[in-house]
Amino acid sequence: MTEFLAGLKRTNMCGELSQADNGKQVTLMGWIHRRRDLGGLIFAQLRDLSGICQIVFDTDVCDKSLLDKASQLKLEYVVAITGQVRMRTQENINPNMSTGYIEVCAEQLLILSEANTTPFSIGDDSANESLRLTYRYLDLRRSALQNNLLLRSRICHEVRNYLAEQGFCEIETPMMGRSTPEGARDYLVPSRVHTGDYYALPQSPQLYKQLLMIGGMDRYYQIARCFRDEDLRANRQPEFTQIDMEMSFVDKEEEVMGIAEGLVKRLFANILNIQLPDFPRLAYADAMRLYGSDKPDTRYDMQLCNISSVVTDSGCAMFDNCLSAGGKVYAIVLRQNESNLSRKDLDKLVDFVKTYKVKGLAWLGLNQTGLRSSFAKAMREKSLDNLIAHLQLQQGDISFICADNNEETVQIAMGALRCHLADKFNLYDKNDYKGLWVVDFPLLEYSEEEGRYVAKHHPFTSPKEEDLHLLDTNPALVRAKAYDIVINGDEMGGGSMRIYNNDLQRKMFNVLGFDEQAIKDKFGFFVNAFNYGTPPHGGLAFGLDRMTMVMGRVDNIREVIAFPKTQQATCLMSGAPARVEKKQLDELGIRSIDQK
Amino acid sequence: MTEFLAGLKRTNMCGELSQADNGKQVTLMGWIHRRRDLGGLIFAQLRDLSGICQIVFDTDVCDKSLLDKASQLKLEYVVAITGQVRMRTQENINPNMSTGYIEVCAEQLLILSEANTTPFSIGDDSANESLRLTYRYLDLRRSALQNNLLLRSRICHEVRNYLAEQGFCEIETPMMGRSTPEGARDYLVPSRVHTGDYYALPQSPQLYKQLLMIGGMDRYYQIARCFRDEDLRANRQPEFTQIDMEMSFVDKEEEVMGIAEGLVKRLFANILNIQLPDFPRLAYADAMRLYGSDKPDTRYDMQLCNISSVVTDSGCAMFDNCLSAGGKVYAIVLRQNESNLSRKDLDKLVDFVKTYKVKGLAWLGLNQTGLRSSFAKAMREKSLDNLIAHLQLQQGDISFICADNNEETVQIAMGALRCHLADKFNLYDKNDYKGLWVVDFPLLEYSEEEGRYVAKHHPFTSPKEEDLHLLDTNPALVRAKAYDIVINGDEMGGGSMRIYNNDLQRKMFNVLGFDEQAIKDKFGFFVNAFNYGTPPHGGLAFGLDRMTMVMGRVDNIREVIAFPKTQQATCLMSGAPARVEKKQLDELGIRSIDQK
Repeated sequence: MTEFLAGLKRTNMCGELSQADNGKQVTLMGWIHRRRDLGGLIFAQLRDLSGICQIVFDTDVCDKSLLDKASQLKLEYVVAITGQVRMRTQENINPNMSTGYIEVCAEQLLILSEANTTPFSIGDDSANESLRLTYRYLDLRRSALQNNLLLRSRICHEVRNYLAEQGFCEIETPMMGRSTPEGARDYLVPSRVHTGDYYALPQSPQLYKQLLMIGGMDRYYQIARCFRDEDLRANRQPEFTQIDMEMSFVDKEEEVMGIAEGLVKRLFANILNIQLPDFPRLAYADAMRLYGSDKPDTRYDMQLCNISSVVTDSGCAMFDNCLSAGGKVYAIVLRQNESNLSRKDLDKLVDFVKTYKVKGLAWLGLNQTGLRSSFAKAMREKSLDNLIAHLQLQQGDISFICADNNEETVQIAMGALRCHLADKFNLYDKNDYKGLWVVDFPLLEYSEEEGRYVAKHHPFTSPKEEDLHLLDTNPALVRAKAYDIVINGDEMGGGSMRIYNNDLQRKMFNVLGFDEQAIKDKFGFFVNAFNYGTPPHGGLAFGLDRMTMVMGRVDNIREVIAFPKTQQATCLMSGAPARVEKKQLDELGIRSIDQK
Repeated sequence: MTEFLAGLKRTNMCGELSQADNGKQVTLMGWIHRRRDLGGLIFAQLRDLSGICQIVFDTDVCDKSLLDKASQLKLEYVVAITGQVRMRTQENINPNMSTGYIEVCAEQLLILSEANTTPFSIGDDSANESLRLTYRYLDLRRSALQNNLLLRSRICHEVRNYLAEQGFCEIETPMMGRSTPEGARDYLVPSRVHTGDYYALPQSPQLYKQLLMIGGMDRYYQIARCFRDEDLRANRQPEFTQIDMEMSFVDKEEEVMGIAEGLVKRLFANILNIQLPDFPRLAYADAMRLYGSDKPDTRYDMQLCNISSVVTDSGCAMFDNCLSAGGKVYAIVLRQNESNLSRKDLDKLVDFVKTYKVKGLAWLGLNQTGLRSSFAKAMREKSLDNLIAHLQLQQGDISFICADNNEETVQIAMGALRCHLADKFNLYDKNDYKGLWVVDFPLLEYSEEEGRYVAKHHPFTSPKEEDLHLLDTNPALVRAKAYDIVINGDEMGGGSMRIYNNDLQRKMFNVLGFDEQAIKDKFGFFVNAFNYGTPPHGGLAFGLDRMTMVMGRVDNIREVIAFPKTQQATCLMSGAPARVEKKQLDELGIRSIDQK
């Protein structure tokens, strides 16, 4: 039989009690986390959001009737307990818990809610994830998950305080907008009032935030839900959250980057007590050349090395053929781990890089017995000596070499190998945080599929003024005023300065191959808005889910979202998506094709 | 020809300059708001989010070439201007503007963006609203609208600071959930991956927030977008925003009401500099009896008066028949306005109350020539004297009387008349704010349509403990632990304490006539969640749009939303909702019925 709380007030949270509270009369409320019945003595752990406190029902202190009542307690019962804080006996002290030196000696117990046996132990994150998602409200009782949600809330709060201080106004933009043909697939919402018409859920507030700048709102931000109906990769969700911002009357990347970097530093300082140094700037071309990635993990070195000139005319066909076809040869060196790689390991590394579109991987190591290499025998001795000298190979080092006709392909393959080896050989401190900006992205990339240049970011991203002359002659070389912020190899956010000059926008559309009609069809009212006085503006969006994962050192995106969806975009708890009543579809004037 | 900003930095916002800045060199950026060309002298008003500053191009100071350039300026051109702040000449001073004593004497001008002639004058809120919604980005340049959005942002920021201080954790709940058959009509989102299945956009985070309490999150809040696919009344939007909160380990209404009232007081104090007194509590029954409304406007008095006993056996058939049928007679008195109501006005009032389902309205006024009444002749003299005495009618007063067999009907009609007269005769100070709580709502109301009791709030709202015994015998009398917060006759928010006791929940379902299968079908996984240990909990949601309207003294909901929809749920700017490509519908496995 359960009881009513009847106005009884909680005096403390479980996890906040300590030796300083010894002797205090307290009322705690929470869930029974553990229970041990020793006859005349019952120990229970009481759990709430703040932590766990030991409760003792002791017949030396309390009535027999209270002990009888306590003996009914089962795991996850919700109770209110009033009693006195006292020091634990020496043998009961648990120095690993903040409350480990005290216990509450119960004088009163209210059983507020009983509980069935839970389908998995509360706090057990090794239980099947599908089961935990089905009973998400029980998995939410796990402290690690609760702490992730508290962290996320804390991040949002710091973000808002910081941006408000910087003069940004928080503005909500619509969730039910218009479908745009560019970009990823939209989630659609059928209109009942206008049968046959559809709203689309926003992929980002991009258009709205630029319109707010045209509307004179000066500095905007929003922690905005966004939606993409994509086949989900791991760590993607159909709905996700962006910290979205835009500011007017600036046209240099540094002005947005400065605000954004200040925000990240503030989050790390105020929440994690970590003072991040200034973020270095790395041009996109350098990021690809040195790390084979536009989001390099700079916690460790092991940079890529273009050895094309070193291995020219080496006699080794693999390199010579590639170079004579205009290709490139890159190497990386894994220091002092040669002996940790068996032949089988090396074969696996070859298979690994092949998934990145290169044909193979060569290696060259120095060990106690001399050389170990997949290609050295085929190489001229002088070339080999040059190579060893160039790579500064020492005994115990092993280098990996890759060649491909397309330089970007070899860079990306070697970049992936670099990360793979760093993980495998623990080449970095997992508690470290290393951030940087990647800048000077190409404005355009050539789409073989469409036979034209497409915008790498979006068609409203501004080119760099100093590259404008290349728009007519060599568009591929034009750099954009775009920037990504990267921490530990994860892209935290990105943005760009926007075009605010009508002539330049028209030129950009020309390069992209759009005629007037195409512009109107694709960008409609948005382009028209630029005809009435547009301030210089630019912005950036952070991924909040990603930010929380990085700051919380969490690998699984479902651990930073209260009610996440599976990779099949379903909610196992509620069963969404689900069938609806025929009446609902009739009202909307739609029909599922599979329903005859 | 426009120019690039090229890194030039704004030093000040237009509206913040004052006499204190006299002599300073400044760079301002904004839109040309007005322009006056006096030959060798051009005056322009430059506008940004902060306000307006006068710029002067004066050939005494600047080059002829700068004047020539300035002469090209048209309204809404975006410019950057560098120059020196100086005092205006005496005849140019405008004491109504904060910047009205100074002007900036331009030395440099960059034309950053040209502008076509706008379809309406910027700042003109008398222009057709459809036109302004179509060019919302131009209407957003109107300072009144900008100030509303700034107010809304400010409210959100104060809400978050307050709730964070009170230990609430901000948690995002899904936008794509499961459709529930109870409640208003859902917006649906077809699933591509699971053809034939649909997500629903949330009408509120109600289920999720209760699950977060069951999950141990203790105190939750969210500024949450909600959706209802209803035929829109004025001042409703298909998407709207709630300040949503829930807290655990409380079971008395006062504990949630205290937090919520503290929040409202804080908003008014910190944003409007208004110290609101404590909010009085008014039982629902009293609110209906005294004001004929569950959201009474208490800025003025003119309470309803039940005169049933006064007019018993009055000889007046209208009253006698009603009373003998068990009905009620109510009056209100409009003081000192008798002479302001013509016979035609009185007839209009009769028509007005008839729209509230009553059959008519009687009146009785005292003026210089004596009585004016629709019924006095039919009444016994003694009854008439009693009535005049009871209503304390003085010369110049007029009373209105209404009778109906259903007491609530007559209350509601008289409540509406009360508001109508107060508006018509300006019976209150429009700058006043009067708030109160309406409490002790009925738990249930009888649905003639369904032939059963239905929950007035929702089936998880807790009855008051002291009324539990009535659940079996007289459910209509059971009061709920529910509360609404009302300001100036507008419902700002409402909430309730929830049932956390399984036995009571089952009893509640019984009263509502649900069997086990119906419970499972209607509430499914949600009810199951209550089987694993549920803390006492309760919460409340404020309407953010409404709150902003009340605090900003704005009547039109579209004035507090950046990109609102029309009453037909369309966005005139983007054209949403709109047709989509057939390919999109094919991928979703749906078809519009009107598309063969």
